[in-house]
Amino acid sequence: MNTISQDVFDVMKPELDLVEARLLDASKIDYPVVSDMLRAIVSGGGKRLRPVLLMLAARAFNQWTENAIPAAAGVELLHTASLIHDDSIDKAALRRGNPTLNTELSTGAVILIGDYLFAQSAILAAEPQNPRVMVIFAETLAEICRGQIRETLEAHDLDQSRETYESRIYGKTAALFAGAAEMGAVLGGGTDEEVEELRHFGAELGMAFQVIDDILDLREGTETLGKPAGNDLKQGVVTVPVMIFAEQYNGRRETRETIEGILAGEITDQSVVDQVVEQIRQSGALQDAGKVAEEYTDAARTRLQAVKDPLIRDLFAQVLDLAVIRTT
Amino acid sequence: MNTISQDVFDVMKPELDLVEARLLDASKIDYPVVSDMLRAIVSGGGKRLRPVLLMLAARAFNQWTENAIPAAAGVELLHTASLIHDDSIDKAALRRGNPTLNTELSTGAVILIGDYLFAQSAILAAEPQNPRVMVIFAETLAEICRGQIRETLEAHDLDQSRETYESRIYGKTAALFAGAAEMGAVLGGGTDEEVEELRHFGAELGMAFQVIDDILDLREGTETLGKPAGNDLKQGVVTVPVMIFAEQYNGRRETRETIEGILAGEITDQSVVDQVVEQIRQSGALQDAGKVAEEYTDAARTRLQAVKDPLIRDLFAQVLDLAVIRTT
Repeated sequence: MNTISQDVFDVMKPELDLVEARLLDASKIDYPVVSDMLRAIVSGGGKRLRPVLLMLAARAFNQWTENAIPAAAGVELLHTASLIHDDSIDKAALRRGNPTLNTELSTGAVILIGDYLFAQSAILAAEPQNPRVMVIFAETLAEICRGQIRETLEAHDLDQSRETYESRIYGKTAALFAGAAEMGAVLGGGTDEEVEELRHFGAELGMAFQVIDDILDLREGTETLGKPAGNDLKQGVVTVPVMIFAEQYNGRRETRETIEGILAGEITDQSVVDQVVEQIRQSGALQDAGKVAEEYTDAARTRLQAVKDPLIRDLFAQVLDLAVIRTT
Repeated sequence: MNTISQDVFDVMKPELDLVEARLLDASKIDYPVVSDMLRAIVSGGGKRLRPVLLMLAARAFNQWTENAIPAAAGVELLHTASLIHDDSIDKAALRRGNPTLNTELSTGAVILIGDYLFAQSAILAAEPQNPRVMVIFAETLAEICRGQIRETLEAHDLDQSRETYESRIYGKTAALFAGAAEMGAVLGGGTDEEVEELRHFGAELGMAFQVIDDILDLREGTETLGKPAGNDLKQGVVTVPVMIFAEQYNGRRETRETIEGILAGEITDQSVVDQVVEQIRQSGALQDAGKVAEEYTDAARTRLQAVKDPLIRDLFAQVLDLAVIRTT
């Protein structure tokens, strides 16, 4: 293979296999039933974009260290723990089309299993014995929590500012991508400036990722999402396509009132939700939101200039593509 | 003051004030309502035994460091976060006689606020930039979660072994005292052996603390506990006094069946619970459980030989007394 475009997952396969092994290890617990469920969740999906990002960043400055493996497993497990608590808060029965823990365990047990995975992720992040990595890890966890608290307390308002939305999705999604890239760059021996550039790359990629997620929630159906379209609306969460629709495309007072009713949980009829989703689809709001995602993607791309090695830069660009060219 | 018996809280006051300031700082969050509630919880009580233990351990080997302050605040906040999740799991409305977050916020918000405090505690524990402290912190969190998972999954069985009970209360309570003492001793420059002895001191103290807690839950009433006696039974949690009662004092088949009914949640009538509690009180089981606590206290005391300075040793002994001579 002499071409510059090797597939990032092929290149990273040896390290990713080690990460998988660490994840399986961390999901072990004394109770066979719980252990089986944890293993299913931990190994059950996702493209491992966060570990890949961390490990690429650790490679970017020619000081690759095996310590990137536990750190990469740590960020993935932090992501998983956070999904478990989210699903518990949303009372979600499905994730990626599979039953969540909520369908099999009490809320209390689900909270504790999430906490246990937080603990395991902290153990993994502490393994490189790098104080700076540990601080980034802890700050990232705090940022994720702030994002989730924002989502619970102030996501329902259709008239929220774009800044409110941005700070929410930064915490909810972008903070962990930013933290993963930063931890990797620190472990890989990047200069302060290089670390900062890769942190920004991760942050912009994460913002793009979440905007795409918000678009997919409206654009796709049950077949690809594993749940009906418009789930965010029903959870009371205002996303950027909905904001754009309300600002620019929605001349009719009734539609706005219907959206507010769905957000408030007063309207739960799926056929009404379907109608609103269809109006949003046909309005052009999804395309406009796509442009917002593109702006973040472009901003991410400029940060890649910090990476001198063209092969690594290409691999980063592939991760960026994967984050935004998705159907689920 | 030249006598050896200065009050430990007088001696530690300057450091404890700094810990309080760090706790208040860590409970700040953008949302005034949530921030007010957090401040009330964080500053709302407890004797700060865990921070005191950590800071005493950091003094025990003549290498006191200011880094013990954030670490001490970190263990207290970890304790608080864990209480918040516990209360959410138990759906408790009162703690120390005060309303819990459950009465004012949704379960989802309570989960997130607990997570946020976990994050803040990790940030504080990372501040000394000591990799060993960070590993102890993360392992302690995992142990606490394992203890809580055990409590949820296997606390209900009246015929459980003493080992099952011990490993459960180790995780639930003793692990954090052990971790606090260990972190302090590491920061204070103890040798490996000294660190190990203080870790054991913390563990034995923690075991005694929890056995006393389990006794108080049966011995005291609403005035001192802030909730009716027998709360553990109603939560389905078998404790050592109940185990002793069932093993040694309970000749009557009906009483055993009543206890099992309460543990299973099939009997909820408070007057029936009160009768069982009264039988346990009059049986001698509480006194026997008191002897179990004493064994742990004695075991803790022997570990104190690792501390050469008689003043510090006396202060440790005071903390041990405070952990076991309690009414609440």
